[in-house]
Amino acid sequence: MNTTSLQQRFMKLRSHKVFELFVVAVIIASALLVGAKTYDLHPVTQTVVVWFDRLVTVIFLTEIAIRFFGEENKKDFFKDPWNIFDTLIVIVSLIPINNTDMALVARLIRVFRVLRMVSIIPELRMLLNSLINALPQLGYVLLLMFIIFYIYAALGSTLFEQINPVLWGDITVSLLTLFRVMTFEDWTDVMYETMVVYPMSWTFYITFIFFTAFAFLNMVIGIVVNVMNDEQQKLVKQKSIDAHEPTIEDLMVKLESIEAQLKAKSN
Amino acid sequence: MNTTSLQQRFMKLRSHKVFELFVVAVIIASALLVGAKTYDLHPVTQTVVVWFDRLVTVIFLTEIAIRFFGEENKKDFFKDPWNIFDTLIVIVSLIPINNTDMALVARLIRVFRVLRMVSIIPELRMLLNSLINALPQLGYVLLLMFIIFYIYAALGSTLFEQINPVLWGDITVSLLTLFRVMTFEDWTDVMYETMVVYPMSWTFYITFIFFTAFAFLNMVIGIVVNVMNDEQQKLVKQKSIDAHEPTIEDLMVKLESIEAQLKAKSN
Amino acid sequence: MNTTSLQQRFMKLRSHKVFELFVVAVIIASALLVGAKTYDLHPVTQTVVVWFDRLVTVIFLTEIAIRFFGEENKKDFFKDPWNIFDTLIVIVSLIPINNTDMALVARLIRVFRVLRMVSIIPELRMLLNSLINALPQLGYVLLLMFIIFYIYAALGSTLFEQINPVLWGDITVSLLTLFRVMTFEDWTDVMYETMVVYPMSWTFYITFIFFTAFAFLNMVIGIVVNVMNDEQQKLVKQKSIDAHEPTIEDLMVKLESIEAQLKAKSN
Amino acid sequence: MNTTSLQQRFMKLRSHKVFELFVVAVIIASALLVGAKTYDLHPVTQTVVVWFDRLVTVIFLTEIAIRFFGEENKKDFFKDPWNIFDTLIVIVSLIPINNTDMALVARLIRVFRVLRMVSIIPELRMLLNSLINALPQLGYVLLLMFIIFYIYAALGSTLFEQINPVLWGDITVSLLTLFRVMTFEDWTDVMYETMVVYPMSWTFYITFIFFTAFAFLNMVIGIVVNVMNDEQQKLVKQKSIDAHEPTIEDLMVKLESIEAQLKAKSN
Repeated sequence: MNTTSLQQRFMKLRSHKVFELFVVAVIIASALLVGAKTYDLHPVTQTVVVWFDRLVTVIFLTEIAIRFFGEENKKDFFKDPWNIFDTLIVIVSLIPINNTDMALVARLIRVFRVLRMVSIIPELRMLLNSLINALPQLGYVLLLMFIIFYIYAALGSTLFEQINPVLWGDITVSLLTLFRVMTFEDWTDVMYETMVVYPMSWTFYITFIFFTAFAFLNMVIGIVVNVMNDEQQKLVKQKSIDAHEPTIEDLMVKLESIEAQLKAKSN
Repeated sequence: MNTTSLQQRFMKLRSHKVFELFVVAVIIASALLVGAKTYDLHPVTQTVVVWFDRLVTVIFLTEIAIRFFGEENKKDFFKDPWNIFDTLIVIVSLIPINNTDMALVARLIRVFRVLRMVSIIPELRMLLNSLINALPQLGYVLLLMFIIFYIYAALGSTLFEQINPVLWGDITVSLLTLFRVMTFEDWTDVMYETMVVYPMSWTFYITFIFFTAFAFLNMVIGIVVNVMNDEQQKLVKQKSIDAHEPTIEDLMVKLESIEAQLKAKSN
Repeated sequence: MNTTSLQQRFMKLRSHKVFELFVVAVIIASALLVGAKTYDLHPVTQTVVVWFDRLVTVIFLTEIAIRFFGEENKKDFFKDPWNIFDTLIVIVSLIPINNTDMALVARLIRVFRVLRMVSIIPELRMLLNSLINALPQLGYVLLLMFIIFYIYAALGSTLFEQINPVLWGDITVSLLTLFRVMTFEDWTDVMYETMVVYPMSWTFYITFIFFTAFAFLNMVIGIVVNVMNDEQQKLVKQKSIDAHEPTIEDLMVKLESIEAQLKAKSN
Repeated sequence: MNTTSLQQRFMKLRSHKVFELFVVAVIIASALLVGAKTYDLHPVTQTVVVWFDRLVTVIFLTEIAIRFFGEENKKDFFKDPWNIFDTLIVIVSLIPINNTDMALVARLIRVFRVLRMVSIIPELRMLLNSLINALPQLGYVLLLMFIIFYIYAALGSTLFEQINPVLWGDITVSLLTLFRVMTFEDWTDVMYETMVVYPMSWTFYITFIFFTAFAFLNMVIGIVVNVMNDEQQKLVKQKSIDAHEPTIEDLMVKLESIEAQLKAKSN
């Protein structure tokens, strides 16, 4: 009985406006902290920053504990991937680190605390979910694009390896070089270099740019069309639910009832 | 009584076609003046330019005075942010400046007179308003993009600070460097430099480009969908208002009245 | 009577399939000629090219004469801007040129013969017309963009003239530099240079990029929405014309007639 | 009789799930092989790779034989362009090559085995088909763009040949240079070079960028509009087929039958 009331008190606390705002404030403060650490700080400031960092860790730990104990069914807590993410970030911050090499890793992990912004603001969480949901429908276009990249990378490292091993040494660096060409970043330097040996090698680059640009365009249009179709269907549904407007089907029902009445009268 | 008639005369004047065209002409002239001042001018021409500049200030002052006194309710004048903007630009031009340092500031402020083009042409004002109205709906996508930038900037300045302090010294310059990477401006130079120390650091750049490109794409599609939905709803409204076409609802009303008549007859 | 029959014979000739195909073939040949002249040619080939060039001029002259005399009303011929364009191109080719300086101009003008491709293929003519028709609706966005460019160019050449007169010397070169920044072409080189003197000058570039990108995006979306609205209205019209499908209005008319019959019976 | 049963057994085999998955696995393995060959391999590994390569060729040969003999009508097999492509790739791999120069060609052809990914996965085949189907509608825009490119290339190589023969030597390299300008790749370097001789030559580049950007934009919008119209028509069709919803036409039929009944009664 006692545990339940404690759980309910935690539940009340975690959905309290002040609690939520306080957590957001701490996350913003920890984000600023992450930024501040990239500057060369005065030793005194540095000590303050370290202590403030520990304070943020303690607050985060408390917050997650409250949210965990506030859950009616403890298993539900770990069903939300954001909760798992939050817990991991806090647990990792707790590991004591002395080794300098690991200190860098610890600092890097602390950077991901900024991502708690996304986990705490529902609108951002929704936005990210919708972004992730949009990915699978791109699956086959991305696969096709990867095949184009792979073939050109294999051709490139077969033909141009002797010309510039830094750019075309093996298939991995060739893929990177082709990504560079796709972003138009000094792609003519890459081309002019190979054109000295193979004067027709400009066809390699031009066709690659055409294929990837075309596939990319297709991908973008695919997303636009999908999103707009979804929107339109939502709109249509909304309309028929909201306004309780009669549909053509309703009209037909009404007409059939009139016809039945007419028939009834003639009999 | 006299003031009112004066106000009405001003009101008539300021909405007169010739007055409006004259003001537009003066604004264009002042814009050309701003351009002319960037050239090395003959001393005589320079004196002409200075005197012409003063003349423009006097005309602008007169124009705003007319528009202010032409307003029925003086408070309404300052409700329009464009009026405040116009007044500020003119008042700032009036401050006498001798100091050379301030002379530069004065010249810069005079440049913003060109913006009066926007405040005087209603179509441009509408266009700018619609641009500003489109901003809030981008709010969360921009916030998400900033979070991505911030995390990568923090990671970048933690990892790469020793490699190139000019590009990755602190979080501010890292943000600038990442913006540069997003515009694909010599981004491979930045990457190749860090790949010497961290051979896998290309993942840092590629994932960053993917995330920002994806968020940006999403933003653009969001705007397109929003604008098109607005347009469609406007079109639907327009249709039902303009053409007085009967709707399905009207048909239903008519059918119910026919049914009622049929029932009335059977009774 | 004789002239009329001649005119009709010309009219018949100019709309003959073989005549049209022959003209297209000559235009393609003249386009290839234009390309061939850019190569270093053997003196013999060069003579051939010069004579072939004269032949093309004669054929074009004959063709236009046929098209002119084939016109029923001679004034109508000059109502089509493409006819005027074709005539000008041919007439200019006829001017005898000895001076070397003018020879270059003559060569350049001959290049525009390739544009006769557009004037002869109806689909290309339609495409170009639709492109030109799309321009006016962009008018105000282009004006707004020019104002943004102008203000930044004035600011730039006021602030940065001392730093790099080649890039920021006067408002014209500043406009060109800003266009370069908008295309992201080595824009960081321009920025880093001014940041040495004004460390905060990155705000100048970032805000400029944001404003122009935003205005450009708005322009593109504006065109998309306009085009799609046009398409949709065309589709709706097409539907109601093609299929003779009854509309809601037709239903209402029918219902009113039924109601009238019911009333007539009750009386 | 015996052959038919054999054919049916092959047919059964080739549509068997395990067979399909095995072929996909071999294609992926051959793709990895293509990638592996771009690395400097240990002589032992190299021998393994060569033998594995031969094994893949044998498997592909067997697979195509099975698919060919599994076909009821042998002619149908060659009606599918993908089958012809698959057969060609395998046949070419069979040609024995000793000459070093041809060895490179053989290696390059083996790269195209990766394309068998597309021929084996139906979704990718469909995607590629839809990409290819989208091409013809772009025909005239691409032609217009080529004309723009051609005219500018002819002008460029006439005017700028003396300035930089590497970039503007003849019409072919000029076309390549203009493609570079269109991708904004160091286009200002090209421009500044010609501006030394012709200070107004920036108009050449700016107008070129405007024309191509405008034509490109038009092309993209054209595709978007086409795709969305197709989608919408598909949606409308789907709706009327799926839901068997009454249409306005059905309503009209019903109304006319009611009217007929009313008339029948009055008589």
